Amino acid sequence: MSEFSQNEFSPTEINKQVLRQRAYNQRWAELPEGTIPLTAADPDFPIPEPIRESLVEYLRAGYLSYGPPAGLPEFREAAAIRFRHRDGIELSADRIVAIDSAASGMVALARAYLDADDEMLIFDPVDFLFSHAAEKAGAKTTRFALTATGEIDWNKFESLISPRTRMIGVCQPHNPLGRVFTEPELRRILELAQKYDLWILADEIWSDIVFSLDGHISMLSLEGAAERTLLLQGTSKSFGLAGARIGFVALPNAQHVTEFLEKSGAAYTSLGASTLSQVAAIAAWKHCSRWLDGFVAHLRSQRDFACNRISKLAGVSVSVPEATFVLFPDISNTGLSAEELSEHLRQYAKVAVVPGSARWFGPGANGHIRLSLATTRDILTDALDRIESNWPV
Amino acid sequence: MSEFSQNEFSPTEINKQVLRQRAYNQRWAELPEGTIPLTAADPDFPIPEPIRESLVEYLRAGYLSYGPPAGLPEFREAAAIRFRHRDGIELSADRIVAIDSAASGMVALARAYLDADDEMLIFDPVDFLFSHAAEKAGAKTTRFALTATGEIDWNKFESLISPRTRMIGVCQPHNPLGRVFTEPELRRILELAQKYDLWILADEIWSDIVFSLDGHISMLSLEGAAERTLLLQGTSKSFGLAGARIGFVALPNAQHVTEFLEKSGAAYTSLGASTLSQVAAIAAWKHCSRWLDGFVAHLRSQRDFACNRISKLAGVSVSVPEATFVLFPDISNTGLSAEELSEHLRQYAKVAVVPGSARWFGPGANGHIRLSLATTRDILTDALDRIESNWPV
Repeated sequence: MSEFSQNEFSPTEINKQVLRQRAYNQRWAELPEGTIPLTAADPDFPIPEPIRESLVEYLRAGYLSYGPPAGLPEFREAAAIRFRHRDGIELSADRIVAIDSAASGMVALARAYLDADDEMLIFDPVDFLFSHAAEKAGAKTTRFALTATGEIDWNKFESLISPRTRMIGVCQPHNPLGRVFTEPELRRILELAQKYDLWILADEIWSDIVFSLDGHISMLSLEGAAERTLLLQGTSKSFGLAGARIGFVALPNAQHVTEFLEKSGAAYTSLGASTLSQVAAIAAWKHCSRWLDGFVAHLRSQRDFACNRISKLAGVSVSVPEATFVLFPDISNTGLSAEELSEHLRQYAKVAVVPGSARWFGPGANGHIRLSLATTRDILTDALDRIESNWPV
Repeated sequence: MSEFSQNEFSPTEINKQVLRQRAYNQRWAELPEGTIPLTAADPDFPIPEPIRESLVEYLRAGYLSYGPPAGLPEFREAAAIRFRHRDGIELSADRIVAIDSAASGMVALARAYLDADDEMLIFDPVDFLFSHAAEKAGAKTTRFALTATGEIDWNKFESLISPRTRMIGVCQPHNPLGRVFTEPELRRILELAQKYDLWILADEIWSDIVFSLDGHISMLSLEGAAERTLLLQGTSKSFGLAGARIGFVALPNAQHVTEFLEKSGAAYTSLGASTLSQVAAIAAWKHCSRWLDGFVAHLRSQRDFACNRISKLAGVSVSVPEATFVLFPDISNTGLSAEELSEHLRQYAKVAVVPGSARWFGPGANGHIRLSLATTRDILTDALDRIESNWPV
């Protein structure tokens, strides 16, 4: 493996021709040619070279036999080691389960830990997968409104906990607000979970993309959290592996793993993660930390560049995200709805953004749009130029 | 791609060292060294070379972006073309959905098409995934006993249809009996489904491994079947792709596809198939038909060899399967239960087989064991030698 060239993230090396063939989910392959997608949170960059090399090497031996229900031992070990290295958390490999994407894991966890008509307390706004997962489990959601800057009113929060509440969904770092909840905030959530005996569903899919000096703060870094935390991480945001569908779940202990494999169907092969995709994730965690540093540095620069320009648009205010590669500007003072503005930008600026609709983020997202920054500076500049030239206000 | 060498199936080329690292699910990686696994239906052979080459080529371009919810257009097209070539059935690509294994697809279909407390009529014995899928959907199963040779008593069959019956599960070819239901049999099932307005869940995961001259007979080859058939196929049995978790669902029409994507979560990324695995399946269907012919020829020879020897064991009778690479001998006249015999063989012969327990195949499997033949002649010979030398009767 060439340690000093392909392992570096390259902020300019993208291939639009391949993206037009392969990048779905509201991106290049689905939009008219000439439209720039700042939509789904999937980078425009190819996977790091060490991942490609690991996959090719794995394929050389020619076997893709059934893997174990909880994931390859090497996968579980690599995930545990990464927790230790990145977050300073000791987490044994027997608490890890490979899962075919954090999205799939969220549904599987909701189905395993919620009964019909249970309630899950989730933030508003927040990624739609929380309510999607609750719905698939036949459960209900109660939404807790965050302030525009993502603050929590604790009395209000506690008042929403009902006798049917069984779980609190925590998106850390938060999509779409880009907040990293502080340790005191996480602790209060944990204390409430302890007080009312609730599960914490900790979606940490964005935990690799953190700009603040403190870095990511995992729910599992809190003493007493492990026994009631169901944690999710993935590789799609950080390493361009959305198509490979690979992430993991961390559970309170090995007994929970056994029960989860049973309940989720993983023990019976009806749920599971491709072994090839597991090999990709192992390479990402073992060999791509320098690549990731470069990627995050590029994203920080993209964030500053874009926030500066977007904040100058009429009727717009934007918080600078501490994490994630999405911006979530408040566009309510433009006088247009998020849907109207998104449609206008798509038609005239030829730039696709995600409207902050209740469907994708909850009612608290109204009056916002979401833009992804995980592209080259040239493409981002082009997109912002077009947005500015075609701004409707 | 070298058309004349690696594309041929090689009946001897296996790598035990790699199998011991990679073959889970009751196989080499999970058993004590020295034990031969004739257990889970996963071949001991590496994937065909054209699959490996396609994956390496796909990885060269370096992108693993989000794929579309129903699967890559090339995947859906390749599945449709294969239906046309192999089964002579016209099936448009817009009826196909890529799924992360037939097992996962069966659960997703049961969840999408059954309500809680609906009943699914399934054969006894049959692969456990039918009852597993019904259970995950909150539905019940009614088991219909096949005779030892897999015959159906039609009056009995019809009498088991209740007002709550919504679906008939058909395993074609049948696992573990190795039967290929005839067209008249399938037609009667279809007529009953029409009479009582039922869905047919057609699990055709074994359809590539058929020895009879008529070949596979798909439920979709029957006129009038399409509108009520939910069909499953996979790649794990035929091409050694169990670890890649890739198969597909064929639905009555494009409108059903839209609804299935919505209900299953595929429209929201919480269900889906790895794009890399889809690329593997495309290569399997496009470039590996000659490889598959060689594999099936080898399995036919293995079947004849093993049936001949096993039928001579005291207390054993065995039907010669028309399809699949498993044997399902009746061992009830040995005086031992399937569990006792399996344990005996594991301990003394160092050969692992699957006991025909109710848990895996239904109560109708009692008194049988299941053996996989998808290995080399040398290994099969060794296993049969050991079984004969250690036969308890």
